[in-house]
Amino acid sequence: MKGERPRWVVGVDIGGTNLRVGRVAVEAGGSPTGVRRSRTRPELGPDQVLDRVVAMIRDSVADVGRDSIAGIGLGAPGPLDAESGVVAETPNLGWRDFPLRDLVAEACGLPATLDNDANCFTFGEWWMGAGRGCRRVVGITLGTGIGGGVMIDGEIYHGASGGAGEVGHTSVDFGGRPCACGSRGCVEAYASGPGIAARAVEAITDGSGSILASLVDGRLEEVTAETVREAAAAGDRHAREVLRETARILATAVANVIHLFDPDVVVIGGGVANAGERLLRPLRREVGRRVFRTQMRACRILRGELGDTAGVIGAAGVFRRAHAAS
Amino acid sequence: MKGERPRWVVGVDIGGTNLRVGRVAVEAGGSPTGVRRSRTRPELGPDQVLDRVVAMIRDSVADVGRDSIAGIGLGAPGPLDAESGVVAETPNLGWRDFPLRDLVAEACGLPATLDNDANCFTFGEWWMGAGRGCRRVVGITLGTGIGGGVMIDGEIYHGASGGAGEVGHTSVDFGGRPCACGSRGCVEAYASGPGIAARAVEAITDGSGSILASLVDGRLEEVTAETVREAAAAGDRHAREVLRETARILATAVANVIHLFDPDVVVIGGGVANAGERLLRPLRREVGRRVFRTQMRACRILRGELGDTAGVIGAAGVFRRAHAAS
Repeated sequence: MKGERPRWVVGVDIGGTNLRVGRVAVEAGGSPTGVRRSRTRPELGPDQVLDRVVAMIRDSVADVGRDSIAGIGLGAPGPLDAESGVVAETPNLGWRDFPLRDLVAEACGLPATLDNDANCFTFGEWWMGAGRGCRRVVGITLGTGIGGGVMIDGEIYHGASGGAGEVGHTSVDFGGRPCACGSRGCVEAYASGPGIAARAVEAITDGSGSILASLVDGRLEEVTAETVREAAAAGDRHAREVLRETARILATAVANVIHLFDPDVVVIGGGVANAGERLLRPLRREVGRRVFRTQMRACRILRGELGDTAGVIGAAGVFRRAHAAS
Repeated sequence: MKGERPRWVVGVDIGGTNLRVGRVAVEAGGSPTGVRRSRTRPELGPDQVLDRVVAMIRDSVADVGRDSIAGIGLGAPGPLDAESGVVAETPNLGWRDFPLRDLVAEACGLPATLDNDANCFTFGEWWMGAGRGCRRVVGITLGTGIGGGVMIDGEIYHGASGGAGEVGHTSVDFGGRPCACGSRGCVEAYASGPGIAARAVEAITDGSGSILASLVDGRLEEVTAETVREAAAAGDRHAREVLRETARILATAVANVIHLFDPDVVVIGGGVANAGERLLRPLRREVGRRVFRTQMRACRILRGELGDTAGVIGAAGVFRRAHAAS
């Protein structure tokens, strides 16, 4: 391989629940090869998570040989500072003022970049997915949390503190549900996986009749968004009402995003988005009631095209962009 | 004056309630001279408004002679298309697909530009006011309506349809107050002048004791935001509660703006902002509860510095920018 240009970037997506590592072709981009998946298991402590990430990267590098790797693109939950590569705080992972980029770069002996995981998702979908070629892209990830990222004219829009695009903590009800972040009415408190489950369970303990309880043998603490979807698919009226309200709440947040960014496309990904058109159709309808016709005509609301490796592809893309000159 | 470069741009701020026209120095910017103010009086019909705007501009041009005028910068309520100079729709003024820019340019024999009034406010405050030199500025105007504008790296951010920065129609309560725009819970329905008045009156007719009714001799339909402020200043508990809630609701909208744009500064103007620090202090406190510390540290929330001619200055600045090369 000597003298050849490195052919791969290792893309790393560090989520609150899952770790994903894969090699993305520097020039062509596209689906990563040699994808490794693992549970994040933050309960084992911050160092454990870092060790596992480094081990997965080393394995990925070893597959093809160090010389064919240009470097490592990391995506992690924020708030973080992309420029310095330091994670300011991740309540889920226990990192605080954690110089993740340089620790990984040193441990692996390769250059690295770091950006917010939802920014990486958005970059990936802009580069290779549903937002290809669009000037203004907002990406929203619906999962354990709700993340967001913004691309304007081919660049990630980071904002003054690196905290732009925090869709999950925009409020849709000023006096509403308390959120772990300290605010109220954050869309994440309603429409993330745990938010959906919590609302469904609360209504049951408030006396709504539902088959939900029987689906988890009465252990209501085991209800997940997936259980709610199952119950809805089986015709459960209570579960259906919860999902209808979820679409309405999500639509309010998406409409707020459109009123502020007026994007060409909103790309929705993450586990909750696996509901596909069953989620997107009522969502679009409700967004249409809440934004101007001119805004709605200019904006498509699409499901991400890259599946669960959008973040890996995007993290690699961010590295590629930063090292374009080298 | 022959051979000299024109020294002035006529700035025009067409609001739903007031018209303002003034001459802004091309090079130095700063406070406009020869400012003319007039009521918009949209009830007289769309042509009447145009005629009066043109007459005010002609008077302003005549003051100094046509040769010393470079052109006209117009600001008007939207949604509008800055590129084509066409107002798509202004419910208040009755304009629809109205080629305002070219009509004014032709009637006055001078080149003209058109942009959204809140964008002009924001441009003005970025150029000469509270947002001077900041990379990311969000301007919010609190008056008869609530407008918003966004500047990124010295450019107005228009979005895909020209409808970006529509802060007034972001929702702070997904099932809340119906808004004239067709959506629900828009911050404008609560915290615009008429929104504040309406909430105060509703609570009275619901039975709250208040001196508000006596301030308007029992004619509750004459209560304005100003009346509510008067009552609050006189110690009226009901009016104070309405204003407290107004700050809370506005803070939710501002926090949403910060979560999405993560700006260096939010500049607040318009009539309702005349309350000054009495509004801004509780607003900042509540915003601080709703955004990340890192975002809050990076962002100042300030009152506009340019008073009621910020829109005139900004409209002139937009013209100057567009004709910089000429």
